[in-house]
Amino acid sequence: DDVIDHSDDELWVKEPVRDNRLIVKTAKPFNAEIPAKYQIEFFDTPNELFYVRQHMPVPELDADDHRLKVTVKGSKIRTEEFSLRDLDKFRRVTTRAALMCAGNRRSEMNEVKPVKGIGWMGGAISNAVWGGVYLRDVLLYSGVDPEDTKGKHVIFTGADIDATGVNFSTSIPLDMAMNPSSGILLATTMNGHPLPPDHGRPLRAVVPGAPAVRSVKWLQSITVSEDESPSHWHQKDYRAFNPSKTWETADFATAPPVYSLPVTSAICDPADGDVVSVKNGAVQVRGYAYSGGGAKIVRVDVSADGGRSWWEARELQADAAPPQQHYGWTLWTASVPVATQQKEVELWAKATDSNFNTQPERFNDIWNIRGILSNAYHRIKIKLVH
Amino acid sequence: DDVIDHSDDELWVKEPVRDNRLIVKTAKPFNAEIPAKYQIEFFDTPNELFYVRQHMPVPELDADDHRLKVTVKGSKIRTEEFSLRDLDKFRRVTTRAALMCAGNRRSEMNEVKPVKGIGWMGGAISNAVWGGVYLRDVLLYSGVDPEDTKGKHVIFTGADIDATGVNFSTSIPLDMAMNPSSGILLATTMNGHPLPPDHGRPLRAVVPGAPAVRSVKWLQSITVSEDESPSHWHQKDYRAFNPSKTWETADFATAPPVYSLPVTSAICDPADGDVVSVKNGAVQVRGYAYSGGGAKIVRVDVSADGGRSWWEARELQADAAPPQQHYGWTLWTASVPVATQQKEVELWAKATDSNFNTQPERFNDIWNIRGILSNAYHRIKIKLVH
Ligand SMILES: [Mo]
Ligand SMILES: [Mo]
Repeated sequence: DDVIDHSDDELWVKEPVRDNRLIVKTAKPFNAEIPAKYQIEFFDTPNELFYVRQHMPVPELDADDHRLKVTVKGSKIRTEEFSLRDLDKFRRVTTRAALMCAGNRRSEMNEVKPVKGIGWMGGAISNAVWGGVYLRDVLLYSGVDPEDTKGKHVIFTGADIDATGVNFSTSIPLDMAMNPSSGILLATTMNGHPLPPDHGRPLRAVVPGAPAVRSVKWLQSITVSEDESPSHWHQKDYRAFNPSKTWETADFATAPPVYSLPVTSAICDPADGDVVSVKNGAVQVRGYAYSGGGAKIVRVDVSADGGRSWWEARELQADAAPPQQHYGWTLWTASVPVATQQKEVELWAKATDSNFNTQPERFNDIWNIRGILSNAYHRIKIKLVH
Repeated sequence: DDVIDHSDDELWVKEPVRDNRLIVKTAKPFNAEIPAKYQIEFFDTPNELFYVRQHMPVPELDADDHRLKVTVKGSKIRTEEFSLRDLDKFRRVTTRAALMCAGNRRSEMNEVKPVKGIGWMGGAISNAVWGGVYLRDVLLYSGVDPEDTKGKHVIFTGADIDATGVNFSTSIPLDMAMNPSSGILLATTMNGHPLPPDHGRPLRAVVPGAPAVRSVKWLQSITVSEDESPSHWHQKDYRAFNPSKTWETADFATAPPVYSLPVTSAICDPADGDVVSVKNGAVQVRGYAYSGGGAKIVRVDVSADGGRSWWEARELQADAAPPQQHYGWTLWTASVPVATQQKEVELWAKATDSNFNTQPERFNDIWNIRGILSNAYHRIKIKLVH
């Protein structure tokens, strides 16, 4: 389940102070989304407005004392230990990457048929420039053979601990970690500042294009192994099923773990139910679009008439990185004509990425028990004032 | 338009002999699809059954005399010339990659509203193991700076010539060519044999994951340039538009060229209209699935009841390459239960790739004037015998 039992109040006394503009979904652990209006106000989300998704209490770590243990299991086991100063000896890089919870927009899928999980609206995605070193460089230094990746995994373990004393952990395939295009970081900064406690101070993984759960915070160890992470979070969550699988029939052991995210978009302004002034016969619509796996958004279309006509967003704001290495989100603005007699319209948004994948029309055929990968068209209803 | 005027019969006298099992769509130029039953019979399509898509007459080239000219335009212009023997000095590699026409499955989109182009059914895709050398290696040798790729393009020119004397040409972005994951080849073999004349003898580009048009055959020159190919085929074709764009309103100059293909699938057996024997209460369904940009197919689902229930294909046959570097197709078999009273069913197939992108339900909202990227659910109707 999403919410780990942490009834012992003492575990929560050191939680960070949070910005009161965040929309709190659960308090313990702290899960909160960024309001839609702030998503489109900043191309890089200010750190204090970045959505927060915790599984456990936030651990308090000292940057000076922090150590990252890297263990590579091969014919023999090799272990390296790095202080943050040691990590700084690798070439330092920055990557602009949105992080998105696999459950972003779950509340819309939930309307089709109830799913299990935090009822995220569209605010479980934010964008930032992350600074750190390439995981690939650290793994090469630690003895990983880039020609021997098949079937191996990189297990990340955080310092956050559940009520039974188990550390948070998940893994990614080693071939993903070693692919230079994947741009995976061991990050210490976020938009030029040291990572805030809620975002992994002093060290986190940033796995661009993947569900944010793989970007393990408060990173304390990395293990290269023949096995995926054995943790609950890895084995019993963040896996994909078709709409016919129930909690009784879903086989987590054989289901594919989600290591990359499909194309999605959301309208941030206006909001569902808003009363909107029509200007020059049109409504201004703004939102975000994003696609995982390094894909870039090439087009966003909006319809105000149930798909009979589509209006292309004219302004797309995006990072300059090319397709296959593009990890930031895209902010967009569209001008959508409406007829003078219309008092109410339903707006649909759909994005197309550089692989020319598009969003599915409806949630019905992508529905899944966990409510993840919820990327059908975003639809809102607004009232018009002419 | 698709079909170049080549009314001079003399241009066609040297056309290769083709396998009479191919389904001919146009004779001059020769365009033919592979029958669905042969697609699923062989994981690697036999060369003589590989679909053929020509824009012009097939040029006759001598492997011994063939030269590839590589021009790199930078602060100064540098040109290299390679015989096939020269190319063989680079490390030789093989890549399993499906090639698919951007217009594959166009006939289904055409049913929504007419589109322009060859009426391909699902047979404009085949799979092969290509042998050659990496384009990246040849470009590095020829003086391309891997750190200076932004905004540059690799123009491929073939030996095939249109009626006005212009050689076939198209281009891809240089960052795509230089990305080691993209696995782009200068290929001389196909399934272990020298390239057949219809597939580019003696040398072709193979751009895995991209529309097949980028895999230029009879390759005679490569130019690295600030500009995309100026050719008709590059500038006025293989670009994407939303459903509301008409031939009058579509602006090819600002539309994104298609360099990668979305997730798709097709049912190959049974065929639409077939009478099928139900065995043990179920129908056996077989087909292919494919996704461009290096994505791997992770699941194929089939519904026989309009999406109320989905049955996961149990057997997926695929290459071992990991996601982001997976370029082959996937063959699949599903067993789909049907009720004893059912005399007729409509089967729907949908694939999900490693980025968890799925096919759109219908063609309506991806419709485009050129009928490309036609990847909605494949739907066929069959009659049942119990
Ligand atoms: Mo997540
Ligand atoms: Mo094509």
